[in-house]
Amino acid sequence: MQNERKAPANPDLSFFFDPRSIAVIGSFRENFFGGHVIVKSLLNGGYKGKIFPINPAYQEVHGLKVYPSLKDVPQEVDLAMVMINARSVVGIVRECARKGIRAMIVVSDGFAERDEEGARLQKELLDIAGEEGIRIMGPNTAGVVNTANGFNPSAYDAGYYRIKKGPIAIGAMTGMTNPQAFPYPELHFGVSKICDFGNKCDVDECDLLEYLAEDPDTGVISMYLESIRDGRRLIKIARTVTKTKPVLVFKSGRTKEGARASASHTGAMAVDDKIFDGLCRQSGILRLEEFKDLFEIPKIFASQALPKGGRLGIVTITGAVGVVIIDEGVKYGVSLTTLSGETRQTLDGIYQGLGTMPVDIGPMMAAVKNPFEIYSRVVEAVAVDCNVDMLINVVWANPTEVIFSSYLKGYERIKDRIKKPIATWVYGPSSEGAADMAKRVENMGFPVFTSPEKCIQALGLAWAYKRYTVQGTRYTE
Amino acid sequence: MQNERKAPANPDLSFFFDPRSIAVIGSFRENFFGGHVIVKSLLNGGYKGKIFPINPAYQEVHGLKVYPSLKDVPQEVDLAMVMINARSVVGIVRECARKGIRAMIVVSDGFAERDEEGARLQKELLDIAGEEGIRIMGPNTAGVVNTANGFNPSAYDAGYYRIKKGPIAIGAMTGMTNPQAFPYPELHFGVSKICDFGNKCDVDECDLLEYLAEDPDTGVISMYLESIRDGRRLIKIARTVTKTKPVLVFKSGRTKEGARASASHTGAMAVDDKIFDGLCRQSGILRLEEFKDLFEIPKIFASQALPKGGRLGIVTITGAVGVVIIDEGVKYGVSLTTLSGETRQTLDGIYQGLGTMPVDIGPMMAAVKNPFEIYSRVVEAVAVDCNVDMLINVVWANPTEVIFSSYLKGYERIKDRIKKPIATWVYGPSSEGAADMAKRVENMGFPVFTSPEKCIQALGLAWAYKRYTVQGTRYTE
Repeated sequence: MQNERKAPANPDLSFFFDPRSIAVIGSFRENFFGGHVIVKSLLNGGYKGKIFPINPAYQEVHGLKVYPSLKDVPQEVDLAMVMINARSVVGIVRECARKGIRAMIVVSDGFAERDEEGARLQKELLDIAGEEGIRIMGPNTAGVVNTANGFNPSAYDAGYYRIKKGPIAIGAMTGMTNPQAFPYPELHFGVSKICDFGNKCDVDECDLLEYLAEDPDTGVISMYLESIRDGRRLIKIARTVTKTKPVLVFKSGRTKEGARASASHTGAMAVDDKIFDGLCRQSGILRLEEFKDLFEIPKIFASQALPKGGRLGIVTITGAVGVVIIDEGVKYGVSLTTLSGETRQTLDGIYQGLGTMPVDIGPMMAAVKNPFEIYSRVVEAVAVDCNVDMLINVVWANPTEVIFSSYLKGYERIKDRIKKPIATWVYGPSSEGAADMAKRVENMGFPVFTSPEKCIQALGLAWAYKRYTVQGTRYTE
Repeated sequence: MQNERKAPANPDLSFFFDPRSIAVIGSFRENFFGGHVIVKSLLNGGYKGKIFPINPAYQEVHGLKVYPSLKDVPQEVDLAMVMINARSVVGIVRECARKGIRAMIVVSDGFAERDEEGARLQKELLDIAGEEGIRIMGPNTAGVVNTANGFNPSAYDAGYYRIKKGPIAIGAMTGMTNPQAFPYPELHFGVSKICDFGNKCDVDECDLLEYLAEDPDTGVISMYLESIRDGRRLIKIARTVTKTKPVLVFKSGRTKEGARASASHTGAMAVDDKIFDGLCRQSGILRLEEFKDLFEIPKIFASQALPKGGRLGIVTITGAVGVVIIDEGVKYGVSLTTLSGETRQTLDGIYQGLGTMPVDIGPMMAAVKNPFEIYSRVVEAVAVDCNVDMLINVVWANPTEVIFSSYLKGYERIKDRIKKPIATWVYGPSSEGAADMAKRVENMGFPVFTSPEKCIQALGLAWAYKRYTVQGTRYTE
């Protein structure tokens, strides 16, 4: 576990996400990175608060007056975003304090992740901030986003500035989940908050969880961690949070080699992976398997009901996918269902053998006259079956409009009707066609995943979460 | 293991991939599937052999004469592709034999994957074919593709017909690797052969391996299996093949639940996953972790030199990715290298701390004036370092042309100069931008993978293969 710090002076993180005003302290040279971009991001993101650029060498940036120093700002400032060199950061903290600033986002690097001198500077930064009652995010952070108020002070240009609102909050010890690194406009289900802890000398995963627990815009929390600061505190807080909001964590630094690299990335100390696993088990945290899961898996929680059981239905046009899914489902205590007698009768009436799980529509394709006319009835019959707790639907994005629309008719028939999670995989002979189809399916409210394996992982974690919240047990027990 | 069959009458599979003429036996109704599509695929794929559509109810299809029966065909026929109902398939085998046909692709389903009656039909089909010296691919197969001669008798319309030539051969117990299911035109490194064994009543993984071993167009073999027919034969053949061509296998039906589903998919019997793992270890087969790996991982073998050791270099703009990669690398005996003194000096001369692995260009970004001017020298210095056996390059597809072009300049500097494998991950704020950048990188001959984890898995398997071929040992030993 990481270094200890006394209880934070000000436990409220709202100054980071909802400041009435922000001071941007750094260079305003036109570049792909820096203060110039932050001001542009703020303006284009739709932030309604006051923006005060600070730098004695500039007069104006994006039409805003630049103040020579913080003390020249004529109004109150809630948050300072700092991008000056590490040595100068420490000096600015006192200035921030004098201005009544309560929170600082320190974008600057060159702290504990760099060398011993950097570690010393970081400690000094933290000590002074502690004395002054200022909360620090970072250093070495790409900052935050809040979609509720359009607050997006991104220091890297992403080419877009507004991000769709949605229930997914993302926190990470990296800027790799910030807008410049991920195509958020393409994430159909939207986000509430994005937060890069950076070296997390102060604000950490526990603070963020506490804040997000109370955030009405957040329904599911996805986090990337390389280390944890205080395991006991995390268990305590996560236990409370996971009662109402699922918490998903991808943790790297699992191996000793990875942990060593982590130390040079954020200056953080590692934690034994088995200990972390135990911590997750005790607190209901769901573990993710790879980095991109951070964006993908939360979609199931963001849009679908939790399953009432672990009985899986599959509708596919190819048998192999069913086998792949079932193999993976075993890890999560999910097993292939047997359809009820009534459904089996209905399906076998359409085509002999269709009532057997996984429901493979492939064979009837060549045999019946208008297979895609029939399709929507098949998916409906399976979805409403009382023996089906969750459904994976495999969609073939064949470049034929009749096939596209028949799949969509299937979703139309079950939309707003059933309270079960449905995960979809779309595949086909063109990425563009598959992406188009995926978009149409997500527009109807059904999340699409990038592989059959991701479909079952998402549903499996939803079932694990359901079990945890109801019975207090995890799928691994 | 699956049922035994005597040594095949005709071990040569060239009739399946390089027939001088093909008879297409089925319906020619215009549809998304069937004989109508097969003929279209053959014509548009550029196949130069003779095509004989067979069906008494049609006169013409796509401008070609349709013959009422096989015996009416005035010329020799090498291969028959059959799509009539299962019960009629058996009857057609004798007709094929009388016509001197040596190979049949049986697309029809309703055999062992369906029910006992289907299993009986399949056995009858196999017995008669054995008597007549005809090889069977399938039944329940989507067929084959050979890019060398443009032979693409696809029964499902993919919207495209020509597939780029390249060294990757794909064999599978599913049609999910055939053109209608995967965007092959987007697979930069191209394929040699595609083959769906279907229920593999006759032609199986061993036959295909033997054939591909001798195929001059094939350099790497990627297979999806749910079962294996004859483990001892597979070990024997794979041992020979893997001496010169890497063989990658994704095997499903790993769990007993998955195996049960597999039985209803292809009628195949499962094999204990530990036994299969031992088999791979003994024969140098490399195991893949998920379905889409079948298309993605072979790219490293298709385009890059094998690594001489397991020392990994990383150039990234973000530290977290380094940690994720290193965690994953441990599984493959790959570890982060230490740069030579000379390289360290060069890099630290550019920016203090840059010479430490992973080489994180992030910190210098904000600090130096034209960081992207410097970038190409950084990637070059790392790539040529004698302590680096393999390299992962992380590319940020920021929507700025100067950044794009500086990355490409990096590749330009090392192209044709070093004989080490390089794997690239491209990420960024727009999928389209990332895809565009990935395409440019692949156009320069460097494979791009869909995640940092896939980069290291590909390199890890390349290193495992190198060790197997040199020392006869696997990374797991």
